Amino acid sequence: MKLHQLAEALGATLVGTNGEVEIKGIATLSEAGSDQLSFLTNPAYAREAAETGAAAVLAKRGKVAPESLLKGASLLEHDAPYLALAKALELFHPNQDMPAGVHKTALIHLGAEVHPSAAIGPYVVIKKGARIGAKARLETGVVIGEGASVDEGAYLGPYCVVAAKCSVGAHCQLEPHCVVGSNGFGYATDKEFKHRRVPQVGSAHLEAYVDLGAHCLVDRGAISTTRVGAGTKMGNHNIIGHNVQVGENCLIVGQVALSGSSSVGDRVTIAGNVGVVGHVHIGDGATVAAKSAVTRSIPAGQTVRGFPARPYKEVSIEMKLVSELPDLFKRLAALEAQLGKPEA
Amino acid sequence: MKLHQLAEALGATLVGTNGEVEIKGIATLSEAGSDQLSFLTNPAYAREAAETGAAAVLAKRGKVAPESLLKGASLLEHDAPYLALAKALELFHPNQDMPAGVHKTALIHLGAEVHPSAAIGPYVVIKKGARIGAKARLETGVVIGEGASVDEGAYLGPYCVVAAKCSVGAHCQLEPHCVVGSNGFGYATDKEFKHRRVPQVGSAHLEAYVDLGAHCLVDRGAISTTRVGAGTKMGNHNIIGHNVQVGENCLIVGQVALSGSSSVGDRVTIAGNVGVVGHVHIGDGATVAAKSAVTRSIPAGQTVRGFPARPYKEVSIEMKLVSELPDLFKRLAALEAQLGKPEA
Amino acid sequence: MKLHQLAEALGATLVGTNGEVEIKGIATLSEAGSDQLSFLTNPAYAREAAETGAAAVLAKRGKVAPESLLKGASLLEHDAPYLALAKALELFHPNQDMPAGVHKTALIHLGAEVHPSAAIGPYVVIKKGARIGAKARLETGVVIGEGASVDEGAYLGPYCVVAAKCSVGAHCQLEPHCVVGSNGFGYATDKEFKHRRVPQVGSAHLEAYVDLGAHCLVDRGAISTTRVGAGTKMGNHNIIGHNVQVGENCLIVGQVALSGSSSVGDRVTIAGNVGVVGHVHIGDGATVAAKSAVTRSIPAGQTVRGFPARPYKEVSIEMKLVSELPDLFKRLAALEAQLGKPEA
Repeated sequence: MKLHQLAEALGATLVGTNGEVEIKGIATLSEAGSDQLSFLTNPAYAREAAETGAAAVLAKRGKVAPESLLKGASLLEHDAPYLALAKALELFHPNQDMPAGVHKTALIHLGAEVHPSAAIGPYVVIKKGARIGAKARLETGVVIGEGASVDEGAYLGPYCVVAAKCSVGAHCQLEPHCVVGSNGFGYATDKEFKHRRVPQVGSAHLEAYVDLGAHCLVDRGAISTTRVGAGTKMGNHNIIGHNVQVGENCLIVGQVALSGSSSVGDRVTIAGNVGVVGHVHIGDGATVAAKSAVTRSIPAGQTVRGFPARPYKEVSIEMKLVSELPDLFKRLAALEAQLGKPEA
Repeated sequence: MKLHQLAEALGATLVGTNGEVEIKGIATLSEAGSDQLSFLTNPAYAREAAETGAAAVLAKRGKVAPESLLKGASLLEHDAPYLALAKALELFHPNQDMPAGVHKTALIHLGAEVHPSAAIGPYVVIKKGARIGAKARLETGVVIGEGASVDEGAYLGPYCVVAAKCSVGAHCQLEPHCVVGSNGFGYATDKEFKHRRVPQVGSAHLEAYVDLGAHCLVDRGAISTTRVGAGTKMGNHNIIGHNVQVGENCLIVGQVALSGSSSVGDRVTIAGNVGVVGHVHIGDGATVAAKSAVTRSIPAGQTVRGFPARPYKEVSIEMKLVSELPDLFKRLAALEAQLGKPEA
Repeated sequence: MKLHQLAEALGATLVGTNGEVEIKGIATLSEAGSDQLSFLTNPAYAREAAETGAAAVLAKRGKVAPESLLKGASLLEHDAPYLALAKALELFHPNQDMPAGVHKTALIHLGAEVHPSAAIGPYVVIKKGARIGAKARLETGVVIGEGASVDEGAYLGPYCVVAAKCSVGAHCQLEPHCVVGSNGFGYATDKEFKHRRVPQVGSAHLEAYVDLGAHCLVDRGAISTTRVGAGTKMGNHNIIGHNVQVGENCLIVGQVALSGSSSVGDRVTIAGNVGVVGHVHIGDGATVAAKSAVTRSIPAGQTVRGFPARPYKEVSIEMKLVSELPDLFKRLAALEAQLGKPEA
């Protein structure tokens, strides 16, 4: 594809003279050659942009001066360059669909339904009453429990498990070793501090376009349904406890644990290694900074941090003041010396 | 089962007029219908109880007024309602045992012993000298290493691995992807900061009735045995390091890491995302709050929090005072202004 | 092997009279018998050493008085006793190589290359264009993606996944359920806070002698290559984000998350549950204490702790002062009382 055609396909404005160059791929600023597109989506890399040997640099409209590209790269200006980059990558790396069909080693119960356009990999196990939708792709060793379902176009990486009665929505993408429908942490403790399992008899449901990074766990409800809303995207090693309700289009970065019966609104961002206690609610559009502990409900739109998580600015000021404690203790001692230290 | 029969089976006292209603299942307060039992085990849900359409509500004796159930639900009073709920769930959801027998794709070494009442799922691998007890259930892809054992009635979810020489006690329940007997973090570092593996030649043993949430790891001992005591229950994503000794009837919530050679007494509660350094001991009945870092041994019965973990009240007071630092700095500045700031 | 022969093999100095004893194995101080070697590598165990029934105790030269071993154990003095212990364990526990050959249930694409000395376990899947080197050992259910490679002598535990185009260097050791080449957390968010996947088209590479503890994840690069340097050793449950560059001979303990495009120099130590934000650099030889959050680049050689991670001593002083806040508040109140509290 020529650069001017690519600009058109992306809805970008071409600034420069390389429009007729045949573009063969996409690379980082430092690695791109004269037949590749590169991109500047983080201003920290401006110096690499100046020196790039790429045919063109995709960047935010108005943020990069064409003459700053010292080796003659053209500019592709776009209002949302990271979205345009996603689109460009899709153009150059079309999804290599697993071929439709069922691998001979897959074990599919006679009472399960598998759409003929689905791709079922080696050693997959699909149990009684399970349903697999059109163009769904199940990689090696995926297990689909009794009565569970995987909707159209979903992708499950190697060794993902969807337990009995649970469901994965259309176009979800699950990285390896995820579990949807594990038994959550439910124990009734007696007077001698012995713990009796509370049978976990609910289910877990991912709505459409949910992504789970590798090793994510979504526990089934104790009695009702654990639910993750459409379009929510998670990184690696997250835990969604039993009965949790997560809204739509959230970002949950990684190493996050949402304890049982907590709930999260829509468009919430939860950064890495956050813990949320049970039975609290995080409102729509809220943001929780990394390593926070959410111990109370968070209003919609609020940005919080710390343990317990409180408004970001408040906690940041306190953290700054903690770093000034050595000075504070000196100032106090000086006052005491000036006054003669009072009796305690 | 009629409600009055259910009350009797649970050892609960029936208050109300629905004793003859046929109870068909259990549901949450907001979802329960007139042929279902519901429950109030967390007072935060009192409003939902008032409005429930359930036939009856299981609750702590004396805590709920019968007339507060506005839609005519009866009351099942019990001294330990959460334990009674566990029992009720067992009644309505009997364990669906996998059928006894060995799946044709399971690979069982001729020198392994598998009890005829055990259930061995697809693609399970059982190596030389391993022993599988009566009514044990091994789900898809479980791997049992050489000389390892799984005792009577234990359940191992898909892709659990019990490494060579390790053992899983009777009636343990392991969620998917757990590993018992992984190699721990043992390296001897030379003067050039190169790291040589210290062979991990010990083993790991779970006593009876231990539960592991999904993706828990119990490393084998470096030389001796890592051990988890009877009745201890864990949530998801915990790490039990090499040589660790965990006592009986502990609760380890999730994302907890017990470093090598640490030890934990009986009836200890460790909340989410706690880290414990190596070679320290947590005494019987102690409680460690979420996200704490245990860097020194904790006496029996103590409740601790923070980094380093110290008595809960002490640390809580300090946390409160940190949030008052902005005010403190103002007060100090006011004093300085009043006095004329002294020379530093 | 007689004790004096063992001393020679380890380069240790034998002090004592048990040189002719036949040594049959290695055990901890409290468990060792009269035909076993034990070791004292942590001074906290000096009392156990005094009482040990071992034939001999391996210890640091000059640190243990021979007469302190009350039950007649000899002493094996060594300048680096932990390295010597590693060597002794190798002598008594030689690696039990899986036998060379391909299990009949393994699925190997005709267009893959597997060295005849490699050991390929049950239910392994090796895809088109993949290459497996000499004496590599792939345990049950390992998946090697298209065009991926595993070099000479590497060991992959059960259910490890090496995704397409990714590579595992010579003599690496991966514990169960590791993933090399998972898709990282890359989303372009539009004005309505909807998230579009950015295709992750790079790869991931482990250099030689890298060890990954159980359940480690190394995400593939978004466009370029995620890389872990030779000799770096990791514990359990670590996350190496997309594009991350880790240097050589690092120690990464466990529950660590290196966010996308961060980089780590050589000989860096990162303790448990550390988080590192994207696009920062940790210099050669730096040390990051447990549970820290690295939010800015760390100079070479520096030891840091806290959130944000700053020099260890600075932060430790501040933590100490936080514990003195109750006293500080009292002192301030006393001054205010002495002066008559000023108007705010």
